Amino acid sequence: MKVTFTHRLEVRFRDCDPLGHVNNAVYLTYLEQARFSHWRALWGFRRLPRPKGVPGGEAEPTPGVILARAEIDYRIPARDGDVLEVRLGVSAIGRTSFSYDYEIVDQAGRIVAMAKSVQVMYDYTAGTPVPVPDYIRELLTRTVAADGGVC
Amino acid sequence: MKVTFTHRLEVRFRDCDPLGHVNNAVYLTYLEQARFSHWRALWGFRRLPRPKGVPGGEAEPTPGVILARAEIDYRIPARDGDVLEVRLGVSAIGRTSFSYDYEIVDQAGRIVAMAKSVQVMYDYTAGTPVPVPDYIRELLTRTVAADGGVC
Amino acid sequence: MKVTFTHRLEVRFRDCDPLGHVNNAVYLTYLEQARFSHWRALWGFRRLPRPKGVPGGEAEPTPGVILARAEIDYRIPARDGDVLEVRLGVSAIGRTSFSYDYEIVDQAGRIVAMAKSVQVMYDYTAGTPVPVPDYIRELLTRTVAADGGVC
Amino acid sequence: MKVTFTHRLEVRFRDCDPLGHVNNAVYLTYLEQARFSHWRALWGFRRLPRPKGVPGGEAEPTPGVILARAEIDYRIPARDGDVLEVRLGVSAIGRTSFSYDYEIVDQAGRIVAMAKSVQVMYDYTAGTPVPVPDYIRELLTRTVAADGGVC
Repeated sequence: MKVTFTHRLEVRFRDCDPLGHVNNAVYLTYLEQARFSHWRALWGFRRLPRPKGVPGGEAEPTPGVILARAEIDYRIPARDGDVLEVRLGVSAIGRTSFSYDYEIVDQAGRIVAMAKSVQVMYDYTAGTPVPVPDYIRELLTRTVAADGGVC
Repeated sequence: MKVTFTHRLEVRFRDCDPLGHVNNAVYLTYLEQARFSHWRALWGFRRLPRPKGVPGGEAEPTPGVILARAEIDYRIPARDGDVLEVRLGVSAIGRTSFSYDYEIVDQAGRIVAMAKSVQVMYDYTAGTPVPVPDYIRELLTRTVAADGGVC
Repeated sequence: MKVTFTHRLEVRFRDCDPLGHVNNAVYLTYLEQARFSHWRALWGFRRLPRPKGVPGGEAEPTPGVILARAEIDYRIPARDGDVLEVRLGVSAIGRTSFSYDYEIVDQAGRIVAMAKSVQVMYDYTAGTPVPVPDYIRELLTRTVAADGGVC
Repeated sequence: MKVTFTHRLEVRFRDCDPLGHVNNAVYLTYLEQARFSHWRALWGFRRLPRPKGVPGGEAEPTPGVILARAEIDYRIPARDGDVLEVRLGVSAIGRTSFSYDYEIVDQAGRIVAMAKSVQVMYDYTAGTPVPVPDYIRELLTRTVAADGGVC
């Protein structure tokens, strides 16, 4: 995979279960954090999965993005206090969807998990998938500095 | 406390932490489930903290409810697979707020935790607390069958 | 898929995110609940993913089970208060692993999500996968009544 | 309150509920993160609520700490992407327990929530509270640099 963005996060005690390590469901939260962080980094500002009219302006509102599929292989356990890197790359851009590949790596450089996800561009008003706009298509191919700043 | 509603729930594995029992934060989720379940039972239907125009009709929309305060004493641990009862009673109704008392009890009848919370009636549009409407004031004093059905 | 067990659960408010429906990561918790519930049903008692010496006796302790892989397709959103059924079937039993197929269905009978998972039998002491014992192999093929009772 | 430690964290999307802001239960997770982070900072190393024999040595194992009570007042909502500071201070040290005060502050310096908690020193083997050891009593009065390093 070609890594174009890295999100760093700290494992919380609450992320862990009675087996003593990060619960399997929580990794999908880590992927989500990385994805949203990537999305914000692409636009250079915080707090939005769905920017309105940027950069297409009010005349061309950005469609929503919905998660259609996720898959994950668990390699080794992560634990409370671990600092993990979620590295992602856009592996494919289709007509109305695009895919991410992910590696989750611990502070010792070991691969904790590998994952993929498929997202669909979606018009919430019409309730239908819509084509990936050209400016998003272009943005998704860029390499972005970890946790902020389009290169 | 005078118990006027009981909500029953099953502890999920994910509710538990590396110490092997239900994580302290999750009890607030149990209280929330009991509160919302109580609220729905009072109106006799599902899925709403904030019914619109019931029973006051469209002319008198029900204001929102926000949580202002919570306090909880942890007595004994609960574990994966436990079936817990959250018993609640309305302990006070003020001008713009009302309070719940709670007991969380396990299947052996032991008190797992005791809690209180304060809720404020709130007009989201105006952004201010509002008086508790009379019909809600009256509803809150009723005894409701566990998980449904106004008595 | 051949459904051999069904686990029923209620969506909690806390399971939902700012988009107003069940967060994608939470579905893996639903699968986990179904899996553990299935496991308990197979042995006819509560609270254990890893029964010791049952039914093989103390001389043959049951190995642990670890989740190696999960994949999920999201079809339609579920919401606070929904009652969902997680239907599962064992789709394959290998030398040291076995696989589940799942359908998550809402109260209207619509498929909310479809999923698969792969589990590996594991000796925690030795730190290695171990063969699926014959009595587990046999148990996994049985049909079990919803939430309890081997048929 | 006298602040002796500050823990900084980022609000995750998953921390938020359908009302669009951080769910009330999640604040207790933020307090827990601050508490554990404080505990680690006091000893100058990571990953333990319960260090063994430090600094008292193997002959004097550190007792466990259990949460006995929490209370919290919610002031203003926090949202996805907010960076929060949990500021804490030890407000009291009793014979077998000690108390924290907390302020949770957002990036604009506004108080999001105020909280208190009571912890009990606990001997898990004996199943009883135990006196707070003198060296812990002394440690708890220190000021610690944010997220690490005893001053």
